[in-house]
Amino acid sequence: MSKVHNYSAGPCILPQEVMKEAAASILNFNDLDLSLIEISHRSKDFIDVMEEARSLVKEILEIPNGYQVLFLQGGASLGFLTAAYNMMGANKTGGYLVTGAWAKKAAKEGGFVGNSKIIASSEDKNFNYIPKNYSLDNSLDYFHVTSNNTIFGTQLKSLPETNVPIVCDMSSDIFSKKVNISNYDLIYAGAQKNMGPAGTTLYIVKDSVLESNAVPIPTMLNLKTHVDKDSMFNTPPVFAIYTSMLTLRWLKKNGGIDWIEKLNQSKADLIYNEVDRNSLFTGTANVEDRSNMNATFDLTNQDVKTEFDQLLAENNISGLKGHRSVGGYRASMYNALPLESVEVLVNSMKELENKKG
Amino acid sequence: MSKVHNYSAGPCILPQEVMKEAAASILNFNDLDLSLIEISHRSKDFIDVMEEARSLVKEILEIPNGYQVLFLQGGASLGFLTAAYNMMGANKTGGYLVTGAWAKKAAKEGGFVGNSKIIASSEDKNFNYIPKNYSLDNSLDYFHVTSNNTIFGTQLKSLPETNVPIVCDMSSDIFSKKVNISNYDLIYAGAQKNMGPAGTTLYIVKDSVLESNAVPIPTMLNLKTHVDKDSMFNTPPVFAIYTSMLTLRWLKKNGGIDWIEKLNQSKADLIYNEVDRNSLFTGTANVEDRSNMNATFDLTNQDVKTEFDQLLAENNISGLKGHRSVGGYRASMYNALPLESVEVLVNSMKELENKKG
Repeated sequence: MSKVHNYSAGPCILPQEVMKEAAASILNFNDLDLSLIEISHRSKDFIDVMEEARSLVKEILEIPNGYQVLFLQGGASLGFLTAAYNMMGANKTGGYLVTGAWAKKAAKEGGFVGNSKIIASSEDKNFNYIPKNYSLDNSLDYFHVTSNNTIFGTQLKSLPETNVPIVCDMSSDIFSKKVNISNYDLIYAGAQKNMGPAGTTLYIVKDSVLESNAVPIPTMLNLKTHVDKDSMFNTPPVFAIYTSMLTLRWLKKNGGIDWIEKLNQSKADLIYNEVDRNSLFTGTANVEDRSNMNATFDLTNQDVKTEFDQLLAENNISGLKGHRSVGGYRASMYNALPLESVEVLVNSMKELENKKG
Repeated sequence: MSKVHNYSAGPCILPQEVMKEAAASILNFNDLDLSLIEISHRSKDFIDVMEEARSLVKEILEIPNGYQVLFLQGGASLGFLTAAYNMMGANKTGGYLVTGAWAKKAAKEGGFVGNSKIIASSEDKNFNYIPKNYSLDNSLDYFHVTSNNTIFGTQLKSLPETNVPIVCDMSSDIFSKKVNISNYDLIYAGAQKNMGPAGTTLYIVKDSVLESNAVPIPTMLNLKTHVDKDSMFNTPPVFAIYTSMLTLRWLKKNGGIDWIEKLNQSKADLIYNEVDRNSLFTGTANVEDRSNMNATFDLTNQDVKTEFDQLLAENNISGLKGHRSVGGYRASMYNALPLESVEVLVNSMKELENKKG
C-alpha cells in the first residue's frame, strides 16, 4: 500500500497490524477452520474475545471496582436515550452542557424520558468554546457532558465540582488520555474513533446506577439487562468487538494511556503551533478549549484555497475537509494516526507559506 | 482450510467467497489504499455500499413501491421495541402470536409502549407447534408474528386472513424463500442468519407506517428518522452492512430466491426424510410446522448418544447441539450451508443405524 495520511473524523484510522489480524480472522479464526463471523457468539472462542475486550478496557482505563463494562450497539445516538433512562432519578430532571451538535441531540433525548435542562450552551458562537461559569443545582438527577466535540474541535479540560452524578459521552476522546473514571457515574462511547470500527458502543457504568428504578426502562435500554448477561443478552456485533479488542491490545502493548497521551499531545502541539505561527492559517476554536483530537482551522485568505487543497492531494492527505457546519479544515488526530502524518500536514502548510507568504 | 460442516444456529455460515472479499476489503477497499473500516461513512465509497445493499434487498425480495429499506443496529431484540413504537396506533394495542422465546420477548416490549395482547401461544407444548385456530380482533393496531422459530424448529407456513397490519420478525428465514412483502406493514430481521454477520438489522417498512403518530417515539427508535436520512442518521455498522451486501450479491448471482428456495427445500427434505425413516431418530417439532431452516430432532434411545456425537466429530460436523431449552439436536441449514453438508450429516445418521440398528 502507498501511504495515505488518513485524517477521517470517524470511522477513522486504526493500526495497520489490527487490520491485518482482523482480515486474517475473517478467513480462519483461532485455527478453527472457521471464520470469526460464522461461529456462535456463545462459543468459548467468542466468549474469550468478549471477556478480553472488557478486561482490557478495565486495565487500560484503570477502572476502579464498582463499575461494569459493556459492549452494546446503537452508537452514541442510542446512548443519549439509554443514558437518560438509566440516570433519571426521583426528580426526573437531567442537566446538559450543550457544547456541540451531539450534546444538543443528547439533551433532546433526555426530554423524552424526563425533563431535560440546558445548564449552559455555546451555540451562540457556533460551539467554538466550552461554557465555564455555570452553576449546578443539586436537585439534578445527573449532569451530561460531551468530553470532545469532533465537529467544532473543542475539548472539555475539567469537570465542575459537584455532587450531581456526571454522565459523559466520551465517543471521540476515550482512550486518548488519562481519565479519572471515579468522577463519572456513566460513560458511553461509540467505538469508531480510538477504539475500533463502527458497530459497537462502549458503556462504563457505576453499580449504583443499575439499582435505579425511577422510570420504567425498556429491556434493551436497561443497562442492568446487559450487565446481568455479561454483555451477551442478545447476539453482539462480533466483528466490531473483536477488532476493538485487537486495537486495545495494540494500545496496551505500546505503552497504554501514558504512551498515547504523550503522542497525542505531540501531534496536537505540532499542528497548533503551525496554525498559530503561519499567518496563512487561523484556528477556529477558542485557544484554551482546543481539542487534542480534532484541530479545526481555516485559511486567513480563501484565495489560496485551491493551491492548499492541491498540496494536500499531492501529499496524499485524506479527510481534512472541515464539517459543513464549520467549514475550513479539520485535522482529526486519533490514536492510530502517526506523528509522521502530522509532520506531512505541517510541511504542506509551510510549503504553502513558502509559495504565498 | 479443511472442510467443517458448520451448523451454527447464528451467527452462522456465510459463503466462502464473501469471507474472502470481506477480508480483502479490510486490507484495501476499492483500491483506495485504505481499509473499508477506516473511511468515512459519508464517503462516496461507503454510500455506494449502503445504496447497493438497500437496492439488492428490494430486487431480491421483489419489494413493491411504497416500502423503505433500512440497515440499523440493535438486533431483533431492539426491533421488538422499535416495532411496537412505530406500529402502535389509536387503540394502543398490539396482538402477538407467541410461537417461541423470541416472540415472547417481542410481546413483552409491546407492553412497554402500549397494551400487548397474546392472541395465541404454543408455550403449553414447549413451542413445538404453530397455533392456528385463533381469531383476530380488527381493533388491534397490529399483529406481530415470528416467521421462523430458530430454537424450536418451527416455521410459519401461512398468515391469517385479516385487515390488521402484520409485523414480522423474519430474522431466521428472510431471503430463504419467496415472501409476498405486500402482506406486511413491517418486517425486521437481524442479519446473522441468511444475510450477513452479526451487527446490523434489516427493516422493511411500508410508507404508511411512517405517518403514524399515536405515541411519541424516541429519535433513534423512530423509523422515519432513518428513512429521512437514507439509513445514515448516525454512523452505520459499516462492516456488517458491507458483508451483507456481498452476501446478497452472492445470492443474486446464483439465482436469487427461486434458486435458494429450491436448494433449501432439498436440504430440508434430505434431513427430515432421514429423521422419519431412521428409527434411531425422532423429530421434535409438529410435522406440518417443521422449519426448513432449523431441523430439531433427537435420538429415540439416548444410550447411543456418545456414539453419535463421536460420529459427528469424526465427520467434522460442528454446531449440531440443540438449544438448552429443547435438548437433542438442531441442524441449522441457512442459505450458505451446502447440500453436501446435509449429505454428510445424513450419512452419519445412516452409519449410526448400520452400527446399532
